Amino acid sequence: MALSKKPYKGCRDLFPENKRTQNYLFEMMKKTASLHGYEPYDGPMLEEVSLYRAKSGQELINEQIYSFHDRGDREVAIRPEMTPTVARMVAQVYREIPKPIRWYSIPNLMRYERPQKGRLREHWQFNVDIFGDNSIYMELEVLQVAVDLFEQFGANQNHFEIKINNRKLIDHFFSSSLSLNEDQSLKLYKLLDRVKKIKPEAFKEELAAFNLSGKTSELFSDYLKIGSHKELEDFLEKIEFPIEKWDYRSFFKVVNELGLSDYILYDPTIVRGLDYYTGLVFEIFDKHPDNRRALCGGGAYEGLMSIFGEDQLPGVGFGLGDVTLKDFLEVHKLLPSFTQQAPSVFIASESEGLASSVMKAARFLRKENLNTIHEVSKLKYKKIFQNANKMGAKNVIILQLNDSEKIQLKVKNMASGEQKVFTMEGLEECSNFCQQ
Amino acid sequence: MALSKKPYKGCRDLFPENKRTQNYLFEMMKKTASLHGYEPYDGPMLEEVSLYRAKSGQELINEQIYSFHDRGDREVAIRPEMTPTVARMVAQVYREIPKPIRWYSIPNLMRYERPQKGRLREHWQFNVDIFGDNSIYMELEVLQVAVDLFEQFGANQNHFEIKINNRKLIDHFFSSSLSLNEDQSLKLYKLLDRVKKIKPEAFKEELAAFNLSGKTSELFSDYLKIGSHKELEDFLEKIEFPIEKWDYRSFFKVVNELGLSDYILYDPTIVRGLDYYTGLVFEIFDKHPDNRRALCGGGAYEGLMSIFGEDQLPGVGFGLGDVTLKDFLEVHKLLPSFTQQAPSVFIASESEGLASSVMKAARFLRKENLNTIHEVSKLKYKKIFQNANKMGAKNVIILQLNDSEKIQLKVKNMASGEQKVFTMEGLEECSNFCQQ
Repeated sequence: MALSKKPYKGCRDLFPENKRTQNYLFEMMKKTASLHGYEPYDGPMLEEVSLYRAKSGQELINEQIYSFHDRGDREVAIRPEMTPTVARMVAQVYREIPKPIRWYSIPNLMRYERPQKGRLREHWQFNVDIFGDNSIYMELEVLQVAVDLFEQFGANQNHFEIKINNRKLIDHFFSSSLSLNEDQSLKLYKLLDRVKKIKPEAFKEELAAFNLSGKTSELFSDYLKIGSHKELEDFLEKIEFPIEKWDYRSFFKVVNELGLSDYILYDPTIVRGLDYYTGLVFEIFDKHPDNRRALCGGGAYEGLMSIFGEDQLPGVGFGLGDVTLKDFLEVHKLLPSFTQQAPSVFIASESEGLASSVMKAARFLRKENLNTIHEVSKLKYKKIFQNANKMGAKNVIILQLNDSEKIQLKVKNMASGEQKVFTMEGLEECSNFCQQ
Repeated sequence: MALSKKPYKGCRDLFPENKRTQNYLFEMMKKTASLHGYEPYDGPMLEEVSLYRAKSGQELINEQIYSFHDRGDREVAIRPEMTPTVARMVAQVYREIPKPIRWYSIPNLMRYERPQKGRLREHWQFNVDIFGDNSIYMELEVLQVAVDLFEQFGANQNHFEIKINNRKLIDHFFSSSLSLNEDQSLKLYKLLDRVKKIKPEAFKEELAAFNLSGKTSELFSDYLKIGSHKELEDFLEKIEFPIEKWDYRSFFKVVNELGLSDYILYDPTIVRGLDYYTGLVFEIFDKHPDNRRALCGGGAYEGLMSIFGEDQLPGVGFGLGDVTLKDFLEVHKLLPSFTQQAPSVFIASESEGLASSVMKAARFLRKENLNTIHEVSKLKYKKIFQNANKMGAKNVIILQLNDSEKIQLKVKNMASGEQKVFTMEGLEECSNFCQQ
């Protein structure tokens, strides 16, 4: 029976046009990272499952990772996210290298998802992480990198927004103001995470299980209503949030000074599913009515080094997938077309027996850095130009034998229409003509 | 217990210096492919095992692939090679797109190997494939791409050689001249594949099992002694190899005309382990005495489309791993150093409270395409220059408050020593100064 030609479920076959598009996304990611002084790294496609078990959260382990036992009975998983890997790598070298450590990567990751728009099983993810301290400046820097990436593509505050929250703030509010214990806090976290996905009545019902008193219940309602930086500041003063835990006043002051206040909004329901976040958490949302979804998430984490028995080294990072980014750019018409990869030269011949001369000339032109496609079968004049036009070649070279049986190269610049004839001895000049 | 900081066995943690090196290899691969008009593609990290079972050979399936059952009980494998994937993808589109199809990819692959020098479990592999016909010109083109890649790195015939053979030639020789049946042929293939790895006595002993007669035994000895293109041509005439199966005369004529005869040598023991090859097979060898090994292998295959129930579409391709390529370049001292990624600007301040101004100025400079690293903590003058020197920054900018408490930016070009002072309003000029 014939095998299926389809890719494995939830994975993509990236044909040239799509791969060129992806390469464009990758180039912009690399450029943005370099502009901020982030250095490239990469890690293994497989990690031991224990690495994810330590901090990534139960849902990931139980439902989402591709795990199996290798031939040596090690329990391994295809990386579902990059943060545990980067933490593991940083744990090896952080004592020796200057801080802050600024790293980025674009790994391919796999999660066992139900494939749907914007969500596949395999995707590539731009990962940006800074390790150093837990100041607001590291958080702001990472937000800045994210904004700059989107701006590189021509996006602005009409296209996307960043909704932020802070785990320290939520922790303090839940424990001190609402007097919840750790277990209850965790449950309320999970409820908050789902608040936008469930109906108000369902939310109310689930909230009832926490037995909040009249006063705390009111406080929780107030919390959910926070809609601006000013309202947040008022709320935090009211609940006596200790500013040394997170200097929100300076944070929002700098956000203003950097001109980012149109981008960065406070949202009390942002909590992030991953267990390792301890400070800032954020999600970037598409503002287009046809694509109202989170594009990217990130946050600050303090405890990741501890799983390797190392000292604290706080980090902040985010991950942005290529699938969601492409959907975002498409819906906003910010994605150029990559249908064609035009060669500098298409070279062919009309005569029998010139195949090796065609290849020889092509070899010369490539050494002169001209992207050259050669055709060894003899073709009719008209067919040569048809083919050249299809591929968008900038120059066409036709090898012919002249009256004295000597090879001549007839070159045409397809844009200007200019034509010239060269010999095999004059390939240098022919190359110069094509470089124009 | 603390988790291990080490990567999974046989995989690499690519810290920035190593990732920069790998990126350099990738850039040269992409450049070479583009020069020849090859287009980028990529496929899924996972494929169904049946895809490899069809054509890749038993050793790969039984001993080398990372296979497992997914949560839907599909038997899948992490791709151990790219050819089956590219064949699957070509099978989807070959009817609609112009031939020949020239594609390349640089996927990460995994094989269950015993890790050793030049061989890891995970590597990235440059895959180049052309699909169209089974002419010698496609074979020659792919060999040319391989040569050009190595030449891009500055390598020449002193550094590497390409040993070739042809499955059609071996098939004809085994069946017509040695009168072996299919089963015996396959066994002799496997023996040939190992001839350089085993002792002459062991080879002789294993050969005895084939019961070659005096005349055929002599012929087989003659075959093993073929050392030049001329000797091969003589041998093929003697055994009456039908030239329409493989036009070796034209093949070697073009090799000469393209100036590749120093690179391309005939070797009767090259057969390639993978089952799908049907024409040219080749391996590229390092000539350095400390690294005498195959760097890369490839060949021509005609039957891959048939496993998808499609028409014949002959292809030729090769795969070159990043680990072997790096080893090759290192042993020949052809690899530049990538220890540093120097930023255009390092910007910091000596004064308290200038953090947000530092970030604001940095933001401006990045918009002007200057790679900028900022430091928000106030630092001593001397320390700022120490840090800047360590990272190799081209310009240093120090923010200070002048006598009237106005921010000024003191800029120094580290190469020329030239210094200038700007204001926050004069960031444009400051940026121009740093662009020099």
